[in-house]
Amino acid sequence: MTDRNIRVEPMAGLAVEDQEVEIVERKGLGHPDSICDGIAEHVSQALAREYLDRVGTVLHYNTDETQLVAGSAAPAFSGGETIAPIYLLIVGRATKEYEGTKIPTETIALRAAREYVDAHFPELEFGTDVVVDVELGEGSGDLQEVFGDEGRSVPMANDTSFGVGHAPLTETEEIVLNAERRLTGSYGSDHPELGQDIKVMGKREDDRIDVTVAAAMVDAYVDDMDDYRDAVDAVREFVADLASEYTDREVAVHVNTADSYEEGAIYLTTTGTSAEQGDDGSVGRGNRANGLITPNRSMSMEATSGKNPVNHIGKIYNLLSTDIAESVVAEVDGIREIRVRLLSQIGKPIDDPHVADAALVTEDGVDVADIEAEVAAVVDRELSDVTSITERVIDGELTTF
Amino acid sequence: MTDRNIRVEPMAGLAVEDQEVEIVERKGLGHPDSICDGIAEHVSQALAREYLDRVGTVLHYNTDETQLVAGSAAPAFSGGETIAPIYLLIVGRATKEYEGTKIPTETIALRAAREYVDAHFPELEFGTDVVVDVELGEGSGDLQEVFGDEGRSVPMANDTSFGVGHAPLTETEEIVLNAERRLTGSYGSDHPELGQDIKVMGKREDDRIDVTVAAAMVDAYVDDMDDYRDAVDAVREFVADLASEYTDREVAVHVNTADSYEEGAIYLTTTGTSAEQGDDGSVGRGNRANGLITPNRSMSMEATSGKNPVNHIGKIYNLLSTDIAESVVAEVDGIREIRVRLLSQIGKPIDDPHVADAALVTEDGVDVADIEAEVAAVVDRELSDVTSITERVIDGELTTF
Amino acid sequence: MTDRNIRVEPMAGLAVEDQEVEIVERKGLGHPDSICDGIAEHVSQALAREYLDRVGTVLHYNTDETQLVAGSAAPAFSGGETIAPIYLLIVGRATKEYEGTKIPTETIALRAAREYVDAHFPELEFGTDVVVDVELGEGSGDLQEVFGDEGRSVPMANDTSFGVGHAPLTETEEIVLNAERRLTGSYGSDHPELGQDIKVMGKREDDRIDVTVAAAMVDAYVDDMDDYRDAVDAVREFVADLASEYTDREVAVHVNTADSYEEGAIYLTTTGTSAEQGDDGSVGRGNRANGLITPNRSMSMEATSGKNPVNHIGKIYNLLSTDIAESVVAEVDGIREIRVRLLSQIGKPIDDPHVADAALVTEDGVDVADIEAEVAAVVDRELSDVTSITERVIDGELTTF
Amino acid sequence: MTDRNIRVEPMAGLAVEDQEVEIVERKGLGHPDSICDGIAEHVSQALAREYLDRVGTVLHYNTDETQLVAGSAAPAFSGGETIAPIYLLIVGRATKEYEGTKIPTETIALRAAREYVDAHFPELEFGTDVVVDVELGEGSGDLQEVFGDEGRSVPMANDTSFGVGHAPLTETEEIVLNAERRLTGSYGSDHPELGQDIKVMGKREDDRIDVTVAAAMVDAYVDDMDDYRDAVDAVREFVADLASEYTDREVAVHVNTADSYEEGAIYLTTTGTSAEQGDDGSVGRGNRANGLITPNRSMSMEATSGKNPVNHIGKIYNLLSTDIAESVVAEVDGIREIRVRLLSQIGKPIDDPHVADAALVTEDGVDVADIEAEVAAVVDRELSDVTSITERVIDGELTTF
Repeated sequence: MTDRNIRVEPMAGLAVEDQEVEIVERKGLGHPDSICDGIAEHVSQALAREYLDRVGTVLHYNTDETQLVAGSAAPAFSGGETIAPIYLLIVGRATKEYEGTKIPTETIALRAAREYVDAHFPELEFGTDVVVDVELGEGSGDLQEVFGDEGRSVPMANDTSFGVGHAPLTETEEIVLNAERRLTGSYGSDHPELGQDIKVMGKREDDRIDVTVAAAMVDAYVDDMDDYRDAVDAVREFVADLASEYTDREVAVHVNTADSYEEGAIYLTTTGTSAEQGDDGSVGRGNRANGLITPNRSMSMEATSGKNPVNHIGKIYNLLSTDIAESVVAEVDGIREIRVRLLSQIGKPIDDPHVADAALVTEDGVDVADIEAEVAAVVDRELSDVTSITERVIDGELTTF
Repeated sequence: MTDRNIRVEPMAGLAVEDQEVEIVERKGLGHPDSICDGIAEHVSQALAREYLDRVGTVLHYNTDETQLVAGSAAPAFSGGETIAPIYLLIVGRATKEYEGTKIPTETIALRAAREYVDAHFPELEFGTDVVVDVELGEGSGDLQEVFGDEGRSVPMANDTSFGVGHAPLTETEEIVLNAERRLTGSYGSDHPELGQDIKVMGKREDDRIDVTVAAAMVDAYVDDMDDYRDAVDAVREFVADLASEYTDREVAVHVNTADSYEEGAIYLTTTGTSAEQGDDGSVGRGNRANGLITPNRSMSMEATSGKNPVNHIGKIYNLLSTDIAESVVAEVDGIREIRVRLLSQIGKPIDDPHVADAALVTEDGVDVADIEAEVAAVVDRELSDVTSITERVIDGELTTF
Repeated sequence: MTDRNIRVEPMAGLAVEDQEVEIVERKGLGHPDSICDGIAEHVSQALAREYLDRVGTVLHYNTDETQLVAGSAAPAFSGGETIAPIYLLIVGRATKEYEGTKIPTETIALRAAREYVDAHFPELEFGTDVVVDVELGEGSGDLQEVFGDEGRSVPMANDTSFGVGHAPLTETEEIVLNAERRLTGSYGSDHPELGQDIKVMGKREDDRIDVTVAAAMVDAYVDDMDDYRDAVDAVREFVADLASEYTDREVAVHVNTADSYEEGAIYLTTTGTSAEQGDDGSVGRGNRANGLITPNRSMSMEATSGKNPVNHIGKIYNLLSTDIAESVVAEVDGIREIRVRLLSQIGKPIDDPHVADAALVTEDGVDVADIEAEVAAVVDRELSDVTSITERVIDGELTTF
Repeated sequence: MTDRNIRVEPMAGLAVEDQEVEIVERKGLGHPDSICDGIAEHVSQALAREYLDRVGTVLHYNTDETQLVAGSAAPAFSGGETIAPIYLLIVGRATKEYEGTKIPTETIALRAAREYVDAHFPELEFGTDVVVDVELGEGSGDLQEVFGDEGRSVPMANDTSFGVGHAPLTETEEIVLNAERRLTGSYGSDHPELGQDIKVMGKREDDRIDVTVAAAMVDAYVDDMDDYRDAVDAVREFVADLASEYTDREVAVHVNTADSYEEGAIYLTTTGTSAEQGDDGSVGRGNRANGLITPNRSMSMEATSGKNPVNHIGKIYNLLSTDIAESVVAEVDGIREIRVRLLSQIGKPIDDPHVADAALVTEDGVDVADIEAEVAAVVDRELSDVTSITERVIDGELTTF
């Protein structure tokens, strides 16, 4: 046990699962904000890997400011067309030269953006449906050599920042998170008519859960209004089945409720995302690091996507606190809910936060005092392994939105 | 009393003022994210006013996606210079023609941006130190004629969205909010050496409050290191005095703690904002609608700045819920803390939310049941007056960040 | 014979072939200015074809303002890499809606740009090595319906403008033009080490011709300095052989004369064009409509590439006057040189120029009076067929640079 | 006398003044192409001066690629408004650091652009009516230290390039050049209704000169159609009077001939330039270095505006050849027309061209042989003073368009 400032205490109030009203939201992969998050983070990973390959250390960079300007499109049954492209500007800072080696940061960024678009958005042609430009300024040069292959050292916190994580997810959270993931994942693979711009909102009042899904359909795979209705019905059914895996509560699923079939106003797109027509986006405006927007829970405003995973304390602490919360719940019995907060201390090693604060709602019959030591031990162990967060981010194992 | 779905209930847990650890942050006027918020909102107000003047109704628009790309600068005692300009792109949608009248939306936006920069950033020359460009696409045309001079009607909610407000502010919140406001306000008027990029973080542990201020100094008014130290000391003293107005707790104020005088690494700028050198920004990444970032409180992720105040339900409900919370506390005795949440119901009038939920921590000896009716009456009255929020936003009476 | 104002007269002075000093230049396909010309013209053709396909008539547009901002690259033997992309902005005007049909002008432009890049620049990856963006404003709407499928009418001249053409080419001109065309054509197909950025300058003093070639080599196909020298030698030999097809004069060929092998300063590129590193470009700054820059001859400053071939009088008259000059020389004997000038008359049909002026240098023993009628007849016939120029431009049969 | 390769010879053919048809054009200050030329050259001068001030030598730069994207406007009698701004992108290369001194090249460029716009376009508000952005890449670093305060040396030619100059101007040329200069000069000062976008075309057939003026009027100073007609009439009268100063030939002046009063189609603008609505522009597409477009004369395609006056051989030789031509005509009697051509020799000092070629049309009774030595002496003297061209460009004494 170290002398880290770890506090374990009872949480004031009810677990979210036990509160009367709960609201949860997830913006899917193809939401304009998430497109920005995804590209910013993919660019970040590519830069980190290239720095390691070329100079053996991750240099200073941040690419957390991607801005998307919507295009325009004319969707039509059986296939419409884009009218004007989506414009996406990758903004950030990156070190372009290190001990005489030039790093092609902008080329790396553009290639990563292409790779991400090609992998996730089959209907978006990179370069014509979406024009991607990049402006990476030189960062301040004094933050270099922070992370090497061998003999890694723990960096110092470069800011006073804050991270927060929770575990376990509530039923509503599980439903919202997994509905979007599976819709854009396995379901989408089999159903090309489903686009990637899917927004899922869950609202629980006591024991009734309403799941509202707004799902962009892709016109090339939808021949007429009947096809469209079928597509909507199939999504509804899929989500309803999925929800029953996570809860015994009553669940109602609503898909594309803003549609008006009489007026022909339906959610039909050419590319699978509303960015094609009028919806702008940017990094950090959507999902928090755990993939959800949860007004019932403490949240950090930090935009984690695109931040440097070596020295950006806000990114690291948000990911780490979530990781700690999950580990504690996995390893220690008797916990109904945990919230972990990490507050950095500028100029101190990041494995030694100003305070690491774990608040618990225990299960009936369990007292915080009973498990305090166990919890603290897990927190301590995880903190001492903070640099593994960096590695897992670079390897793409941790998601940021 | 109407049949609005208003719920008044006890809050699970302690008032924030009574929690052991509290964290509060405010990004000041000149923080790159706040510059974006401020311009986006000022552009929004200008558009709304011009629409009213020209066609008698506020047309569809949203200007909530401003992106700032940092410039570069070479600050120096007694006056350095900017090297490359800050670039600021105003992104959004706006209706450019209405019944034959053309609306010069981009000219309006640029003039509003100039007005805002000139009013708040004396060291930033518009057009050279900061290049502002604008891309306003045409929004979907079906959302028009929502707000007229006479016979105003209550618009329908266009989305399922959520707003949350709190009252009263805690001592720490008061200190953080007012420190920044007065520093960039009256203090700044007398102290041109203080820039507008001021970040204030408050951390309270039990009865000890630490206020950390990062304040950009303006080089033209700082002749040497002694001058700089004096400027820092004066800020510290000012904030310490100010804090004592709001609390009897122990307060420690820290200013520019990352400085290293030996290495000459100080927070000196040419223009008063870190946007001049390497810090990018965008809308909605900083302060919530009440001007603060409060991880101890429920927050909405909605970016309110730049949104249309007539029909953007997220903006309206965030401002309204704060307004309701403040009104309740002002009018009803016995409340230690209130949290008001409003959840919209797509397609229904915005004065009739799906649920308006007021959670109370009462003072000792007061029961929620005692004041429930009073509270509900205030909530109801404020809801029925929802359109006044729109007017106050357009008139610039309500701040959004 | 019509009553068109056609003048046939002797030219004051010597034929260019007989002047003492002659200078000729051609910027090759991959020169930054020519890249802009080529894309502007390819976009123009694509727009014209799409307008015909979709609404049966070519609508108002001009895409003659493409701007290229150079990238940066790090070429190296056996293969270097691009550091930052070339940025290319397609600027112009285009009609986006016609009788209710929307025309996806920006998508058409981007796809045409991609097609052109892919066809001509094998080492340039569209979207990453070169970022192409497009800004097509709405033109004035009053210039529509100018060219239909059936019953085509002759449009009116929309400006006072001027075109000039010459025939036949001199020996030096033939050498310069064909050297570049074959180098980037058949030779390039067999020699991937030769890039597309080839600049050829011919200088003739009396009977001595110096041909100076600056040819970008592609690093992936050049392993070392010996390879590079071989590549340069091969180009020199190829051009020398080619020159002997066109002249019996003494010819000296110089390739990459600015190279310094000792200092390692050679013309090595990663992508085959100097646009990759520091050389910007734009439309209309390079070759005239006949593919050459010829200070010995009268030239028009008109940028023909990207202009609308239906109603842009400057484009049409430059192409037509060249066409007329070539036809006259092919059909009428006894001409050593002809210069044809067409001056438009605003508001009059374009087949009825203010003046069509043919100046002749005849061969020994031939008097202008002898062939005047023949020449005038060809001029007249070609003028009456002016709209075929438009068709041939749209079909890509006529080059503009 | 040196051993420079100077050739003096008779010109083949007639002086332009004696040819039957002559065409001359000048794009005025406010033409979109000229706006680009003017800003590019003003930026160039500012950079050169700042380099001299800061590091004592002009470093490598070129700013000759400014692109203007037209805005949109709604002109109206007594004052309309701009709808969307003109966008102007200054593109080029500039050295940003020299022996540890940073040069704020982009700030210099933007300030120069503002200065130029403010000085010449009273109706264009910088930053809102016209948005100016700048992209100055780093040039290749090997071209530095070419021009110092003391002990100036003659630089080497960096390219094979060509310049050409003529003297004296013909009557038609004088009229066209001076009409535009005085209209945008003294006349414009007294007549705010006259904009800066003035295009003058002169056509002479034998002894009849037609001067066609297209002049943008500024709506704020024109109250109705009568006012407009008066403004047009006043311009016509002014130009007619001016023309009589330069010629005894018959002159007809036509102003705004494309107007149709019945249809209300007149040349009315809000800002005085057609760039406000639909007319794009770029550098080097308009006037040659002598301020004119002269298809009757040999022209260089070189864009001189914005080029580095120290080492850009194309710029220097175009300005120098004009200067030589004027000096020869001023100092040597008996010359009706002179054309001076300078061809550079890569790697040789620029005062030693490959060939300096002066072609003369002499007055009756004068033989070239009579004045050959005199002419050669002037050419030689001017060549030896080549660096004064650089100084005069930097001081703004020489115009480039």
